[in-house]
Amino acid sequence: MSFDAIDVIITKRDGRELSDAQIDWVVDAYTRGEVADEQMSALAMAILLNGMNRREIARWTAAMVASGTRMDWSALGGPTTDKHSTGGVGDKITLPLAPLVAACGAYVPQLSGRGLGHTGGTLDKLESIPGWRASLSADEMLAVLREAGAVVCAAGEGLAPADRKLYALRDVTGTVESIPLIASSIMSKKIAEGTGALVLDVKVGSGAFMKDVASARELATTMVELGEDAGVRTVALLTAMDRPLGRAVGNALEVAEAVEVLAGGGPEDVVELTVRLAREMLAAAGVDGRDPADALKDGSAMDVWRRMIRAQGGDPDAPLPRAAETMDVTAPADGVLARLDAYAVGVAAWRLGAGRARKEDPVSHAAGVTLHAKPGDHVRKGQPLLTLHTDEPARFDRALAALEGAYEIGMAPDPGLLPLVIERVTA
Amino acid sequence: MSFDAIDVIITKRDGRELSDAQIDWVVDAYTRGEVADEQMSALAMAILLNGMNRREIARWTAAMVASGTRMDWSALGGPTTDKHSTGGVGDKITLPLAPLVAACGAYVPQLSGRGLGHTGGTLDKLESIPGWRASLSADEMLAVLREAGAVVCAAGEGLAPADRKLYALRDVTGTVESIPLIASSIMSKKIAEGTGALVLDVKVGSGAFMKDVASARELATTMVELGEDAGVRTVALLTAMDRPLGRAVGNALEVAEAVEVLAGGGPEDVVELTVRLAREMLAAAGVDGRDPADALKDGSAMDVWRRMIRAQGGDPDAPLPRAAETMDVTAPADGVLARLDAYAVGVAAWRLGAGRARKEDPVSHAAGVTLHAKPGDHVRKGQPLLTLHTDEPARFDRALAALEGAYEIGMAPDPGLLPLVIERVTA
Repeated sequence: MSFDAIDVIITKRDGRELSDAQIDWVVDAYTRGEVADEQMSALAMAILLNGMNRREIARWTAAMVASGTRMDWSALGGPTTDKHSTGGVGDKITLPLAPLVAACGAYVPQLSGRGLGHTGGTLDKLESIPGWRASLSADEMLAVLREAGAVVCAAGEGLAPADRKLYALRDVTGTVESIPLIASSIMSKKIAEGTGALVLDVKVGSGAFMKDVASARELATTMVELGEDAGVRTVALLTAMDRPLGRAVGNALEVAEAVEVLAGGGPEDVVELTVRLAREMLAAAGVDGRDPADALKDGSAMDVWRRMIRAQGGDPDAPLPRAAETMDVTAPADGVLARLDAYAVGVAAWRLGAGRARKEDPVSHAAGVTLHAKPGDHVRKGQPLLTLHTDEPARFDRALAALEGAYEIGMAPDPGLLPLVIERVTA
Repeated sequence: MSFDAIDVIITKRDGRELSDAQIDWVVDAYTRGEVADEQMSALAMAILLNGMNRREIARWTAAMVASGTRMDWSALGGPTTDKHSTGGVGDKITLPLAPLVAACGAYVPQLSGRGLGHTGGTLDKLESIPGWRASLSADEMLAVLREAGAVVCAAGEGLAPADRKLYALRDVTGTVESIPLIASSIMSKKIAEGTGALVLDVKVGSGAFMKDVASARELATTMVELGEDAGVRTVALLTAMDRPLGRAVGNALEVAEAVEVLAGGGPEDVVELTVRLAREMLAAAGVDGRDPADALKDGSAMDVWRRMIRAQGGDPDAPLPRAAETMDVTAPADGVLARLDAYAVGVAAWRLGAGRARKEDPVSHAAGVTLHAKPGDHVRKGQPLLTLHTDEPARFDRALAALEGAYEIGMAPDPGLLPLVIERVTA
């Protein structure tokens, strides 16, 4: 069936529901270039302001999945499960998590992304490992899954091309902040990825896209419904992003911290969240076997990690890049670190070179921030709170400016700190 | 000052007011191509859904005027006044009105447009006069005004180019129906035209853009405020467009009816509205002289008409084009014509060839519909109600389909008919 783009826009503009046929047509016609960018951006604004109901969002997502190929892992003969994070500061959880879950008996076929702005991207982090390749064909993905049980790589061109085109448009037209459009963008990629089960880590707080629990809950609920409607067993956790996760922010710095966790150490919050998400992923996939905490301790997760990195051309034993210059930020007084703002630390790492302002920009693998204290820790005047890492010392001043007002030393930690895991959302 | 287009879009998306500087920048940057079509269409949708206040609309209009040249008629040494109609079916009022007002002592420098869809355009009507030219330079306009006192022609490229670009974009992005954007589009052209006074004829009813009195009043009030804010003495009349105006719909057919009015005859409603609008235009211009009704009777308005047509290359004595084929639509019963829907008659004339579906299409000058009865008239079964005119007989069926259910014969006229002049709106 063919429609007129203007009629579809006016339907949503006037607060009416889009029909299944209208949604199928407009997503397909936009992908083919028959619906123009200026028409889709007007429609995106109408969707942002007037919303879409559950049926519309599900259909929109299905249309984006149908714009490309849907991957199929049935050849593996075992359960598949994946995790998606909405993005945060110091969120390297995928790195220990994917091998850990594979070590416990489920396949993890993860298509991941790059960082933009103050949040890092998993592929940028892994690319700090010498030799590691993000781009794999579907056959190569299958080979890595067979070899290691887990794969983390870039999505191919053929996966939800409608989403790729629409995301780039929303980025320049002020139409990013729409829960229906965010949810359908994330879920179209995860559904097309072909995973059988999915755990969503929806971050909440200054360093996250969702600043408050209510909007994070709405996004989580929408995505869980979308996953279940598409036959993917889906649960979501709302987790804290008011302070950075772990003690390392930046690409190679986060890889090093992930390896510590795989070696049985690492920061408490990273370990706790990794184990919790692994349990959720295994439960969602219906795998009732080893406890992930054991697989971290006995080295089996580390074995998977090493196989996975090698299978994608990386050398797990090669030294990671280190920044040419470092600078310490010290505590201005004795007391308790009451607050350490995630967003400010993310922006500081970005300005040191760890992130990019535009998709085309390169990132520095060595740049970033390490934390010597976390909110709640006692500190002494003059002790290092943070270390800034960069190859370009001219960047220190810009990072310091971002950190202005980002931390407070008090007598007690801020009572407003979010619990690490705030809430669990299921269908 | 320079802004980021995304910030401007988000300001309006989130329901906040645009600053003067934001409006000046975005209109100018869009005209220069620095703000992309897909950004402006997202902004237009946000404006449509979240509105603009009086200050924002005035500034938006001023920015569109400032995107081009503003004409200046001070060299004439006399008052200027103009009329704008929001468009209707059978609305040929400009044709007798412009010369009539000139005959009564005010200059009328009217920039006019072409028809689209079911409503006709004044330039299309005048072009049915052999030799008549719509395109004049500013110097040629001045010469015609000096010669005849009135000129009706097309707007040049340099007049409110931002409006031309934005209007074309709104047309394909479902963002036409916004009172702030409609009002600023109309008024930017009328302000740039340089008239000192302006009377707005805001049509209400099925054949008009505004279907109800409340929305017509809102549009009229907005435009009157915009005119006054820009130093143009402005008043508006809300007038009936639930039935066609006069007895002729179509280009040459309407010119013939206009000439009847200038000769002292013509349909009562056309004469009444022409005289009423002429009085308003003269009063707005501060001209207190002859009564327009007299200038119709004594032939002085006709004299101006003939000078004006000749000054633009037309031959006022040349025969007008006549359609090759006609077909009568007859009354199905005895009774009173209770209803004759303006929109249906407009669509029938359009389908007979009088109108165009796209800007680039040509129009037939001879095609159209003539009315043998108006609502309230007694009719006898079998008498002609309408005559359809076209050069392509294949079009009759499509016109007849448009007229299905468009008229009713009853015992009394529909009590719901609007008065010819519904309301007067002033600042």
